Amino acid sequence: MENPGYCSGSFDGLHHPSDDDDDEMVDIAGATLDFSSTDDVPPLSSGGFEDYSTTTGSSSSSSRAAGMNGTGPSNLVDPLEDPLPGVGTYEDFNTIDWVREKSKDRDRHREITNKSRQSTVALLHSISDAFSGWLLMLLVGLMAGALAGGIDIAAHWLNDMKGGVCLIGFWFNHEHCCWTSNETTFQERDRCPQWQSWAELITGTSEGAFAYVVNYLMYIFWALLFAFLAVTLVRAFAPYACGSGIPEIKTILSGFIIRGYLGKWTLIIKTITLVLAVSSGLSLGKEGPLVHVACCCANILCHLFTKYRKNEAKRREVLSAAAAVGVSVAFGAPIGGVLFSLEEVSYYFPLKTLWRSFFAALVAAFTLRSINPFGNSRLVLFYVEFHAPWHLVELAPFILLGIFGGLWGALFIKANIAWCRKRKSTILGHYPVIEVLVVAALTAIIAYPNSYTRMSGAELISELFNDCSLLDSSQLCGYKQPTNTSETGAGNSLADRPAGEGLYTALWQLALALVFKMMITVITFGMKVPSGLFIPSMAVGAIAGRLLGVGMEQLAYYHHDWFIFKGWCSPGADCITPGLYAMVGAAACLGGVTRMTVSLVVIMFELTGGLEYIVPLMAATMTSKWVADAFGREGIYEAHIRLNGYPFLEAKEEFEYSSLAVDVMRPRRADPALAVLTQEGMTVGEVETLVESTHYSGFPVVVSQESQRLVGFVLRRDLLISIDNARKRQEGVVSASQVVFTEHAPTQPDDAPPPLRLRGIMDLSPFTVTDHTPMDITVDIFRKLGLRQCLVTHNGRLLGIITKKDILKHMAQIANRDPESILFN
Amino acid sequence: MENPGYCSGSFDGLHHPSDDDDDEMVDIAGATLDFSSTDDVPPLSSGGFEDYSTTTGSSSSSSRAAGMNGTGPSNLVDPLEDPLPGVGTYEDFNTIDWVREKSKDRDRHREITNKSRQSTVALLHSISDAFSGWLLMLLVGLMAGALAGGIDIAAHWLNDMKGGVCLIGFWFNHEHCCWTSNETTFQERDRCPQWQSWAELITGTSEGAFAYVVNYLMYIFWALLFAFLAVTLVRAFAPYACGSGIPEIKTILSGFIIRGYLGKWTLIIKTITLVLAVSSGLSLGKEGPLVHVACCCANILCHLFTKYRKNEAKRREVLSAAAAVGVSVAFGAPIGGVLFSLEEVSYYFPLKTLWRSFFAALVAAFTLRSINPFGNSRLVLFYVEFHAPWHLVELAPFILLGIFGGLWGALFIKANIAWCRKRKSTILGHYPVIEVLVVAALTAIIAYPNSYTRMSGAELISELFNDCSLLDSSQLCGYKQPTNTSETGAGNSLADRPAGEGLYTALWQLALALVFKMMITVITFGMKVPSGLFIPSMAVGAIAGRLLGVGMEQLAYYHHDWFIFKGWCSPGADCITPGLYAMVGAAACLGGVTRMTVSLVVIMFELTGGLEYIVPLMAATMTSKWVADAFGREGIYEAHIRLNGYPFLEAKEEFEYSSLAVDVMRPRRADPALAVLTQEGMTVGEVETLVESTHYSGFPVVVSQESQRLVGFVLRRDLLISIDNARKRQEGVVSASQVVFTEHAPTQPDDAPPPLRLRGIMDLSPFTVTDHTPMDITVDIFRKLGLRQCLVTHNGRLLGIITKKDILKHMAQIANRDPESILFN
Repeated sequence: MENPGYCSGSFDGLHHPSDDDDDEMVDIAGATLDFSSTDDVPPLSSGGFEDYSTTTGSSSSSSRAAGMNGTGPSNLVDPLEDPLPGVGTYEDFNTIDWVREKSKDRDRHREITNKSRQSTVALLHSISDAFSGWLLMLLVGLMAGALAGGIDIAAHWLNDMKGGVCLIGFWFNHEHCCWTSNETTFQERDRCPQWQSWAELITGTSEGAFAYVVNYLMYIFWALLFAFLAVTLVRAFAPYACGSGIPEIKTILSGFIIRGYLGKWTLIIKTITLVLAVSSGLSLGKEGPLVHVACCCANILCHLFTKYRKNEAKRREVLSAAAAVGVSVAFGAPIGGVLFSLEEVSYYFPLKTLWRSFFAALVAAFTLRSINPFGNSRLVLFYVEFHAPWHLVELAPFILLGIFGGLWGALFIKANIAWCRKRKSTILGHYPVIEVLVVAALTAIIAYPNSYTRMSGAELISELFNDCSLLDSSQLCGYKQPTNTSETGAGNSLADRPAGEGLYTALWQLALALVFKMMITVITFGMKVPSGLFIPSMAVGAIAGRLLGVGMEQLAYYHHDWFIFKGWCSPGADCITPGLYAMVGAAACLGGVTRMTVSLVVIMFELTGGLEYIVPLMAATMTSKWVADAFGREGIYEAHIRLNGYPFLEAKEEFEYSSLAVDVMRPRRADPALAVLTQEGMTVGEVETLVESTHYSGFPVVVSQESQRLVGFVLRRDLLISIDNARKRQEGVVSASQVVFTEHAPTQPDDAPPPLRLRGIMDLSPFTVTDHTPMDITVDIFRKLGLRQCLVTHNGRLLGIITKKDILKHMAQIANRDPESILFN
Repeated sequence: MENPGYCSGSFDGLHHPSDDDDDEMVDIAGATLDFSSTDDVPPLSSGGFEDYSTTTGSSSSSSRAAGMNGTGPSNLVDPLEDPLPGVGTYEDFNTIDWVREKSKDRDRHREITNKSRQSTVALLHSISDAFSGWLLMLLVGLMAGALAGGIDIAAHWLNDMKGGVCLIGFWFNHEHCCWTSNETTFQERDRCPQWQSWAELITGTSEGAFAYVVNYLMYIFWALLFAFLAVTLVRAFAPYACGSGIPEIKTILSGFIIRGYLGKWTLIIKTITLVLAVSSGLSLGKEGPLVHVACCCANILCHLFTKYRKNEAKRREVLSAAAAVGVSVAFGAPIGGVLFSLEEVSYYFPLKTLWRSFFAALVAAFTLRSINPFGNSRLVLFYVEFHAPWHLVELAPFILLGIFGGLWGALFIKANIAWCRKRKSTILGHYPVIEVLVVAALTAIIAYPNSYTRMSGAELISELFNDCSLLDSSQLCGYKQPTNTSETGAGNSLADRPAGEGLYTALWQLALALVFKMMITVITFGMKVPSGLFIPSMAVGAIAGRLLGVGMEQLAYYHHDWFIFKGWCSPGADCITPGLYAMVGAAACLGGVTRMTVSLVVIMFELTGGLEYIVPLMAATMTSKWVADAFGREGIYEAHIRLNGYPFLEAKEEFEYSSLAVDVMRPRRADPALAVLTQEGMTVGEVETLVESTHYSGFPVVVSQESQRLVGFVLRRDLLISIDNARKRQEGVVSASQVVFTEHAPTQPDDAPPPLRLRGIMDLSPFTVTDHTPMDITVDIFRKLGLRQCLVTHNGRLLGIITKKDILKHMAQIANRDPESILFN
């Protein structure tokens, strides 16, 4: 079996879950990680998940009753009869059954509601249960906001560390260090004597070639150090902490189980290494990983509340909200975050979750604001306010940016996936540390000479979005000052001006930065460090947009009599805002890579706050999506999900083929008949033989082999646990005992061993479709109800079974891809 | 059978659909309207819907093939074989089958995609088909935006007409009339000589008791005239134009068919009467009806595109977007509009629709802005900008407002529903015109003396939201001017000041207005004129909020040394913003009545534009929803849906009972067995007898009566049309002919008449659940897949059937309501 390879590659470490509350510490050994066989017998947890392995024989050793677990699939069972622990839980790397989980939660809720009428204590319990969701959201918001603030501050500090150190305290970053300085003017507040570059500190001078070389070397040294720390920490403590995490979170939210992916070790290591990775100057951002961090917070906090700890479906509601929180703190856009969660990552997103997500996103945003990591009362570094309106003619360049964004997005996805595939299949994947170090060194060496690549991605974007005022001293605002100020008028401090020497230099540097960023990002995303894609994509787009914007501005300045400028661009007016072009370009590129639409526009809208700039953003985003979709309908996250073989049924894409259920179901025509259990007449030994001779994760129960009339469905895991338990506890259950799924045990000869009654673990309401059901409808049912499997009948007889994996394999086959790339159930 | 009573009451008119494209002109006669029996045989339409009645015998007279219609339920049928016209369409007041409609659209799409590979023309067709959705959205946005602008301007003009007339042209409204005047200062721009009140015009003076009486009488006269025109127009031409329309649109979007509800007559009459109703001074708003107007636009424009005209599911996607457009133009809040559609009205809202809704909402907002009906470049009358931040302590009064809003909301719903029920059941309902006139007269008489009730609801809200500046001359800003300006500081033009004489008068008038608005709205909403609820609810809340705000402000001014004000409210500072309280109050009351959450907060956020005011809004909205939910979980729209007996399965509420499918299905234990068809062996005559002896809208087909193994499902309508058609066209089909549902016709004796093969109209993939399926899961399936009916099996044998109506009846029964209140299928 191929390696599943989270983080788009196989990680050379053995996965040893010393499982405690689905959170684990991972040992790294030389062996190859194989997720699909979790043979380890974890110590049974005292709360949370019971991680029963199907093959373990000691599963009945848990003394704790699993509460409401297990009543879901068997609603006829006496609720007083304690279900077996482990029945109704899932194995790692398996798909949950949404219907069962939701039903379980409704049962739980019903019980609490019924009890609440009996006593005051129960009533209070019922109320606290109802409000626990809100409390949890509050905690998630507070925790994620605080962590995001901490990450921002730490990354800022470490990033400045590459350039120099603060003499009055090494823990101050550059800006903070110079705040207290009285010797600097507002203009030169960044050049205070307290802050010394490494060259100054070592050689005593900050001028000259030698100092430059020293600074250059120190920059590379720090970059390599940070990168090395990041990758070793990830390797040593939490291999799941690498990458952006969004593909995995999408998969988890769609109902997949990846133990430890949202655990506390992942949280701790991801938080630390994210700071290191961002500071190392690699072409990556912290926005995607912040979503992962927020989801980890949510998952950990879920353990405080039984309602969420015990139910996989409820927990996913919280995780959906946490994804919104992540984007909310990453961009300071609570509404955009909620829409991101709705549009991009969530699978099941009821309206209740919408409202709670919004609440959590707001709490997080305000927590972050009160920490004020940027010292400007804003939530993000690149908040902008534009003053000039845009003109309809400008839609043409905006659409051009959209086309660029779409092309770049499609190209990036293809190149990145090809590179990741190479990493998976060649020797490259075996040396993740060396890979990271090489890329970091390459990045540092090339990035340092160019001031636009030397600064962090967020700073670059902030500078590119910025509108040049007359007083702005940055190179990008190196316009020629107007000779006679009377011409431009007093109010037009932002009027179009001719480009000066400084601006031309900046444009060259930006063009080089663009090429560099476009190339390095392809090999950076997917390495074994936390790496977000938002900032690099936005940077590429912002550079392209700014270049085009300045070009348009100069065109309008020198040719304002052209007919396209006539009527709206008089001399001395502020016609073109290059910063707006940068923003539109950033949106276009991000849209091309991720295929976000509404959420992207709303996030950008929240950055500017002006409704009128939505139209350019929308035009560019729409174009970008259409162009990119023409080359392949998958966004980067879907592409990585497919690369990793996760069982993810895309909700956005329609199933476009005309196959029927009968074409997809197992067994195929040539295969042996479906393995079924009969509701009576089989012995324990026969059942065990059947189970052991197959690898199916569940078995239909029929009235009799002849009639093939369906009664129910039993999961392999539940069956094994129950038989095992019965053999240990129940007296007289031997291999010859009958297994009975009927309501009343059949009459037996007196000397026969007592039958084993298993109706309790049988799902009495399995989903069925007929063999003639078109697959588009079947896929719709799977998506909307969140099914694991569905039985296929013909004229009332059981014919076969369709699992999610079968559907995905079928889709892969039709699309001429390898159906074996779908790895999990 | 009880009257269904759209508009919360029975309307005394016979519904005569001279059906053209699901849009009809309604004749009013004396008879009682009975929606459930559409015995009329409409002339067959040349496009759009084929309105076949089940009982009509002439249904085969249509010569046009229904295109793709009808291939949905039978995917095995040869696509070249033209399906019968009418097969696959729906009757009025019936529920659509979402699965079938979506499947139909996928078939259509697949065909176009396949063809597109063959020729350039087909490729162009495929591309134009793909973009037709966007084009449609653009058109909807433009049309709805333009209509909203027109309505705003016309309502403004007519509203001013009640007070006086412009001498330089009667078509100018008050503000517009005075724009051109040079004789007035900025302060008194509303008092120009060109604008004359009726008293001035008639008596020559605007002072004195006589002038007051003349103005008073003229005000009442115009109010009565407008109200009379509105109600007669509605009665005469489009009875569906009354009410807010949102309950019906919710029902339609959930998959119900109400012919003509979104037709062109409804659009024309609703647009005109909305202006009249708003201008008449009744306590109603135009926001809800604007949603209806936008949906009418969308429905009419759908007829331009085959894709949307022919498919009920696709059309509903467009209608969902149109609902967003309606709110977008009503509040100038495109994002809020989209969220409103998502949260409040839509049933099936895929992500594609989200993106398109957003586009349409933006187009509409910009169309409205370019019309600029308020002359301030804003989209709404009550756009506000607050300058002062709020303090954490203020959360207490905000939450108080939330409690008030919740209580008022719950009370309002109960009172309004009770009143509407009385209207339905007593003689009151027979005199809608008199009712409207009486209420209009009452409103005018009471409203005129109080300046806050005399102005329109939107103006009132605008004034209440407004922050008082030093120069503000309105009564509400009648503060004592600070004696020594040095104390307050230059920057604090909005500093808290002591209340003066004017303010105290204003507060009294506001308190009276509050009581009046609260009472009159209860009897106004549900009358036979277009009436929205947003503005009256917001007005109630805004008044309450402003009162509390001014109270807090005075408290803070006189007692700024109290510990609650310590530390944040120093003398001369602008601590309390009464306008913010008004806004929070408005949100709370609207939330209490409609139970909106996210969309409400986002709409309010878009009115202010400041992220920091979201927290108070959210606190109030949340409190209001919780308080109101404690008294009854239904919002006003759901309450009206239930009052009218529409088959609406609320998606927000969980099904909380522990019944099983077997408890809900028909036939019940005592009933005769389920009426089924066998797949062979029945004659045409037998089938006809069975169909005629029952009223079911569909019949399961089984292998044989003995085995009861399910083969498929046939709709009554399709069955009747097919048999009827076969008798007319197909040679030799007589009563003795066998009806065959199998793939291959059975061998028959040579002298037997040729069999009638009906496999083509049979749904080969009917949905089934087992009898043990808990109802919560079943309800979930119905909701998520949009089913009409579901068959119930036990161990592979057909047992019964569950329809949407059965579920609703079951829910009504459990909740101790009359199950017969559910009127439609």
